[in-house]
Amino acid sequence: MNSECLRTLQAQAPDRLASFEKYYCGKRVLITGGLGFIGSTLAIALADLGARVTLVDSMIPEYGGNLFNISPVRDRVTVNISDVRDRSSMNYLVQGCDCLFNLAGTLSHVDSMTDPFTDLEINCVSQLSILEACRRHNPGIKIGFAGTRGQYGRTGPDPVREDTPMRPVDVNGINNVAGEAYHLLYHEVHGIRAFSLRLTNTYGPRHQMRHHRQGVLNWFLRLLIEGKTVKLYGNGRQIRDTNYVDDVVEAFLLAMADDRAAGQVFNLGGEPVSLMDFVEQAIRVHGGGSYELVEYPAEAKPIEIGDYRADWSRIRDTLGWHPRVALAEGIARTLEYYKQHRQHYWDTP
Amino acid sequence: MNSECLRTLQAQAPDRLASFEKYYCGKRVLITGGLGFIGSTLAIALADLGARVTLVDSMIPEYGGNLFNISPVRDRVTVNISDVRDRSSMNYLVQGCDCLFNLAGTLSHVDSMTDPFTDLEINCVSQLSILEACRRHNPGIKIGFAGTRGQYGRTGPDPVREDTPMRPVDVNGINNVAGEAYHLLYHEVHGIRAFSLRLTNTYGPRHQMRHHRQGVLNWFLRLLIEGKTVKLYGNGRQIRDTNYVDDVVEAFLLAMADDRAAGQVFNLGGEPVSLMDFVEQAIRVHGGGSYELVEYPAEAKPIEIGDYRADWSRIRDTLGWHPRVALAEGIARTLEYYKQHRQHYWDTP
Repeated sequence: MNSECLRTLQAQAPDRLASFEKYYCGKRVLITGGLGFIGSTLAIALADLGARVTLVDSMIPEYGGNLFNISPVRDRVTVNISDVRDRSSMNYLVQGCDCLFNLAGTLSHVDSMTDPFTDLEINCVSQLSILEACRRHNPGIKIGFAGTRGQYGRTGPDPVREDTPMRPVDVNGINNVAGEAYHLLYHEVHGIRAFSLRLTNTYGPRHQMRHHRQGVLNWFLRLLIEGKTVKLYGNGRQIRDTNYVDDVVEAFLLAMADDRAAGQVFNLGGEPVSLMDFVEQAIRVHGGGSYELVEYPAEAKPIEIGDYRADWSRIRDTLGWHPRVALAEGIARTLEYYKQHRQHYWDTP
Repeated sequence: MNSECLRTLQAQAPDRLASFEKYYCGKRVLITGGLGFIGSTLAIALADLGARVTLVDSMIPEYGGNLFNISPVRDRVTVNISDVRDRSSMNYLVQGCDCLFNLAGTLSHVDSMTDPFTDLEINCVSQLSILEACRRHNPGIKIGFAGTRGQYGRTGPDPVREDTPMRPVDVNGINNVAGEAYHLLYHEVHGIRAFSLRLTNTYGPRHQMRHHRQGVLNWFLRLLIEGKTVKLYGNGRQIRDTNYVDDVVEAFLLAMADDRAAGQVFNLGGEPVSLMDFVEQAIRVHGGGSYELVEYPAEAKPIEIGDYRADWSRIRDTLGWHPRVALAEGIARTLEYYKQHRQHYWDTP
């Protein structure tokens, strides 16, 4: 078994693993953003479960696509390089699929402010294209969408429920609100079974490591591995809710297989921690390292969200999900992965 | 004075008229959707106030643009035929303007479901283009955006406040949520003074009358003028909040001139009424007519919103706006206008 996520289930929840095997074996599954962080981790699990997996990825250099991510299952999945903005390829690719994990998207808050049109095209226009493709060519498909805590904007200190009003503070958040809303609308009006998971800060193996604009947690781990000083903005006390990637993958597998998820939105979340505490834990696990506090850069300050804690009781109560990998364990696994494979993530020749 | 709106102010609120004259005289004003329903009514008022007005309109046949709408001030405004989707023309046109009333948009809930991409391009992509044009070429501009009650979706029977979570039930609503959010974000992050008015069902002179997909109230009045039977969907008891167009125009003039509006969202509203009561009032004013109840058409039922009542206390308390034209009076003026000018709205040769 190549999937670490499934190995955890085997040890902790063999019934769930069995139900996944039953559901996914032989299923035709499409994953957009399939060579990226979460897409590839999901692909490895699905290949292990016996699904027939096609990965769609645009391999845009600054984004997360990396063929090395799927090396454990390279010969058991189909890779299709294309862009979700390309309507004709999406019209073709959705045909005959049972499930679509729709994970392609730009993730950078800062980039969305400097290049708002690209963010709009990928996170908003393309989502509508994909849904129209499904409506016209495969209305029986099931779709899982990756939403984000960025949809909420500044939420204050309390745990955020799914019905909290969404007031995004950057273009990326606005476009994700729209992209998710299209999915729910196509469920409501056109009967396409779609759900959304609103992801919080996810970290783990297979995240791109060339820059920090798509997630800082992994970036901090790279700096520790390199022996560099981590820079924390402001006082470093900003709370982020965190999830190890395997827990996110399990949530996607669970929601897709459960008809009660259709038309629903679920927060994910797990271990809220200040960025400083995250780094301090990582330093302990790594056995060394340092950080310093610096001023917010001009482009980051106005879109800083303050603290974020997710209330993820809905997915716990509805689908029985809970995170399994504690922060110290997740950090250890992530550091181990990148120490072993750094040449595929930043020391590329 | 050509503007009926300003004549009402002259009679009821001469101080407000004087403050408008002081603020707008000599101001360079751009109106997107300027040949449409609200845009043209606003243009007539602004021309009367001494503003230097440029109207941008794409004159797309099914939309609201009609040169006859501005005939009272045709020689005192500049008409520029172009599409808000055309980035280069918008980059040029925003330069040197003091105020932009950003009213271009598609309004049809049903059309947005059959042609979601056009709705997306106009209501979402173009809004971002316009804001980027302002940020790059004229960051000192002030912008008023026309939002819609469609952003809220199904709200239930209670009056809806601005902080009610938005759950649109059609593509048009989703795109308007995004379009408005861009405006607020560009205020927050880039300092562009923008506000949004969330309009409810607005009726009055200068609305297009060739089809019912951009607003039913005016369409009902056309049917009465033609001696045809009005068809009400379902039981006809759906509540809509209503505003006469002049009251909406006054709200835009007021919010643009008041710096307290920057970064704010305001509901408009006035006289909530069931569609059946609206038609019965119109029949009384018109002196005849009939209606019947019919089943919802298949394309209308899933996006029906139920009842809608606006809580418009925020704009009342913040800016001192309230509607001035009661329903019976507004209906009478509208019927009178179209009886006189019907050849310009539906009996075109």
